[in-house]
Amino acid sequence: MDARLVVVTGDRLVDVTDALGLAAGPGVGPGGPLLALLERGDAAEALAALDLDALPSAPSADGARLAAPLARPGKVVGAPVNYVDHKVEMHEQRTIADYGVFLKASSSVIGPGEDIRLPYRDVRTDQEGELGVVIGRTASRVPAERALDHVFGYVPLLDITVRSGEDRSTRKSFDTFTPIGPWVTTADEVGDPGALRLRCWVGDELRQDVSTGELIFDVAQLVAYASHVMTLHPGDVIASGTPAGVGPIAAGQRVAVEIERLGRLEVGVTDDGAIAYADRPGAR
Amino acid sequence: MDARLVVVTGDRLVDVTDALGLAAGPGVGPGGPLLALLERGDAAEALAALDLDALPSAPSADGARLAAPLARPGKVVGAPVNYVDHKVEMHEQRTIADYGVFLKASSSVIGPGEDIRLPYRDVRTDQEGELGVVIGRTASRVPAERALDHVFGYVPLLDITVRSGEDRSTRKSFDTFTPIGPWVTTADEVGDPGALRLRCWVGDELRQDVSTGELIFDVAQLVAYASHVMTLHPGDVIASGTPAGVGPIAAGQRVAVEIERLGRLEVGVTDDGAIAYADRPGAR
Repeated sequence: MDARLVVVTGDRLVDVTDALGLAAGPGVGPGGPLLALLERGDAAEALAALDLDALPSAPSADGARLAAPLARPGKVVGAPVNYVDHKVEMHEQRTIADYGVFLKASSSVIGPGEDIRLPYRDVRTDQEGELGVVIGRTASRVPAERALDHVFGYVPLLDITVRSGEDRSTRKSFDTFTPIGPWVTTADEVGDPGALRLRCWVGDELRQDVSTGELIFDVAQLVAYASHVMTLHPGDVIASGTPAGVGPIAAGQRVAVEIERLGRLEVGVTDDGAIAYADRPGAR
Repeated sequence: MDARLVVVTGDRLVDVTDALGLAAGPGVGPGGPLLALLERGDAAEALAALDLDALPSAPSADGARLAAPLARPGKVVGAPVNYVDHKVEMHEQRTIADYGVFLKASSSVIGPGEDIRLPYRDVRTDQEGELGVVIGRTASRVPAERALDHVFGYVPLLDITVRSGEDRSTRKSFDTFTPIGPWVTTADEVGDPGALRLRCWVGDELRQDVSTGELIFDVAQLVAYASHVMTLHPGDVIASGTPAGVGPIAAGQRVAVEIERLGRLEVGVTDDGAIAYADRPGAR
């Protein structure tokens, strides 16, 4: 099915795909229409310039569903140990100030309603609910004071993690390990990204409940730090780190993360295709 | 300057950009023309079907230069501790079989003749010469026996690394930290990727000299392992790991990696813009 770009405004869903020239075609790569728009470099302005009243409503139920707002971001940057309470629960002596950032594979993204696939039958895999930050303007060595100017918007995100001994990039990059959605809320609608309540449930159990004010590197510091290391391009996503309350997920469960002003992302969990850890390629 | 795609065949450089519809435009994203071709999924066949004799020669010197063959790959996957002699020199007890793979930022790629920029004045930064593997067909959970069918070609690569305490993704993802080139040699021209001599120089000093036969996970096992974790897409690059002989690089030096059948990649080193480690954002 073709991916469409839809703006949610008040009580309307407006299909802006054709108005912005983002229908499937040579100009829209595997990242989908929002990434193609962001890569033009002026996504916020292009959206603001639209006369939404003159554009068609998005199709409702019939055959339409919400997909990941960015199917394959340019980069997915992660923030290890970026909440004090998570540092305590993980018995960590160090924080993001010591570890820096890590990277997740962009191929690990899924959208609302899809399933997290557990790779191993016999290794613990955890949910980590997080605030996702979507970059809107190229950022290279930007100071924290100007970092938020480079943010397009925010999105609930799950950083799914296998608790084994490999490098973070391996443990966090399995396909389906970065659910994002239900949509990206533009920065102008969010206000202070450091004052949002974040909650994460597995089934009926509320496991995580925190304010983003508890971040060790707040969003501006995180963008500044990441942009000190690597140029951030429009469409890159930063997973800002998880608070205390991570825990194992199991097949058949539902995992939800809800962030104030940003909506609720919910996905399933399956062990279809899971193997024994000892059966992975290259196991000794 | 527009990026062009050129085929080297015998003694001719053939410009295939227009014949393959890869001129700069909406169909060619920031990854450049080769990535756009690879993302179509049939790059090898499309190249083989060309009548090269009927196509124009690439411009020689005037204003033309070799750029990174993939300006911004989809992913850059790295292989930690994948040569036994490097394991010994790093006093490592573990290998890639324990660590799995890591990820480098795709924004860290540069091409031949460009400069590695040292981020810190006072932290050691090392060269690591490596065989780069370019994926040509989507690979998900492929067995080693079929893994090489998913490889488009090979390219000399440098995995530049800061020797500090952060996560590998941080230490290896600074802009300019993944030189690749001078070109990608298609798999059919290479034969066995496990029988290539790799040498790496810093200035006149030959620091690394190994056969790719000494890899712990050979190319097929590496593609199989990586594809077990994450779907590999056309245009993804795997840095297959470095042998013994890594060492510090300094401003003004030239770094070269030459691999049998694949050519010689040479880049410079500069400390323009380098800062003191204590001055990095978020330093405690």
